[in-house]
Amino acid sequence: MSGSAASRVVDAAAELFAERGYQATTTRQLAERAGVNEVSVFRGFGNKQGVLAAVVGRVVAEQPGRAASELTGLSLREAVTALAQREVTNGLRDGGLMTRLAFEARTVPEVAELFAGGPQANLAAMAAFFADRQRAGQVRPDLAAETVAEAFFSLTSSFVIMRTVLGFEAGSDAQVEQSVAGLVELFLSGAEAHR
Amino acid sequence: MSGSAASRVVDAAAELFAERGYQATTTRQLAERAGVNEVSVFRGFGNKQGVLAAVVGRVVAEQPGRAASELTGLSLREAVTALAQREVTNGLRDGGLMTRLAFEARTVPEVAELFAGGPQANLAAMAAFFADRQRAGQVRPDLAAETVAEAFFSLTSSFVIMRTVLGFEAGSDAQVEQSVAGLVELFLSGAEAHR
Repeated sequence: MSGSAASRVVDAAAELFAERGYQATTTRQLAERAGVNEVSVFRGFGNKQGVLAAVVGRVVAEQPGRAASELTGLSLREAVTALAQREVTNGLRDGGLMTRLAFEARTVPEVAELFAGGPQANLAAMAAFFADRQRAGQVRPDLAAETVAEAFFSLTSSFVIMRTVLGFEAGSDAQVEQSVAGLVELFLSGAEAHR
Repeated sequence: MSGSAASRVVDAAAELFAERGYQATTTRQLAERAGVNEVSVFRGFGNKQGVLAAVVGRVVAEQPGRAASELTGLSLREAVTALAQREVTNGLRDGGLMTRLAFEARTVPEVAELFAGGPQANLAAMAAFFADRQRAGQVRPDLAAETVAEAFFSLTSSFVIMRTVLGFEAGSDAQVEQSVAGLVELFLSGAEAHR
């Protein structure tokens, strides 16, 4: 299986898992959506869980918790804005995929296995980022870094859930950017030290 | 069907819909969990969608958007704290029921019908509450009331989703109350006028 065919399978899986869930998607549907033979899917990924692992791996690589460490040179405002815009853009693009999969983790062991500790690790990375900024005097010291991280995570994840699951209008890219900027402003006003 | 039997059916449905979803739950399972005959379920509610309507009706009656109008005599801090604690308590009790159902609304028409406009109406009620508080000079006027409402809604709904879906530890009632108080403090610091 060529790299581009493998990439098409992962794209197709991300779409189908977000639309109808992991369990309800067959490898045949994956192959059809990707425009490849079903046999190629098995050769390239072993089984449906192998495709899921590739999908989850790609999303995790783009998560803001992991990216927080790359933002050491930025001001608090620049870093938080960049993280929020990135998480919302990714989440809207993938149609609430991770939330849908998180629901299935409760009842589908294959999904649970790949999710084990994922969101917790992401939140812990965000908490470490805010703890650093507390030590640097940029984030108010009277709240737990975990609480600040949870508030940040909530704003962006809810923004995505409302628009991919609950049917709120997302609006244009410029409107999304403006709404996220308003939420970030509110968050920063509450989280910054020395106002 | 007696009132208490009907109430047991609604309780059973709320549990089963949260655990495995609406579509995967049968009226027979509902009857078994409630300890009544399946025939009684049909007599009392017509069909499974009738049970769903009763479940959703009960949750909606407890939603903070609707309750916001009852809070006119309270300070901003008292009102927001009461709303947040109530929404989290209800959400943890029902195990993320509404989020699970919202996901099914994308693919199950019977669920979509009952959800039509529900979350939007709830958010609009919250936005009206914050707009009132802006006019009263209590909430900063430079952000849209919708943005403030969305930030509030995000904090409490994500808190519930993390603990009912993503597998975060909820902790004791006292710990939950303390965590929510921290999130409310952060939100209010960002949202209050004249800091």
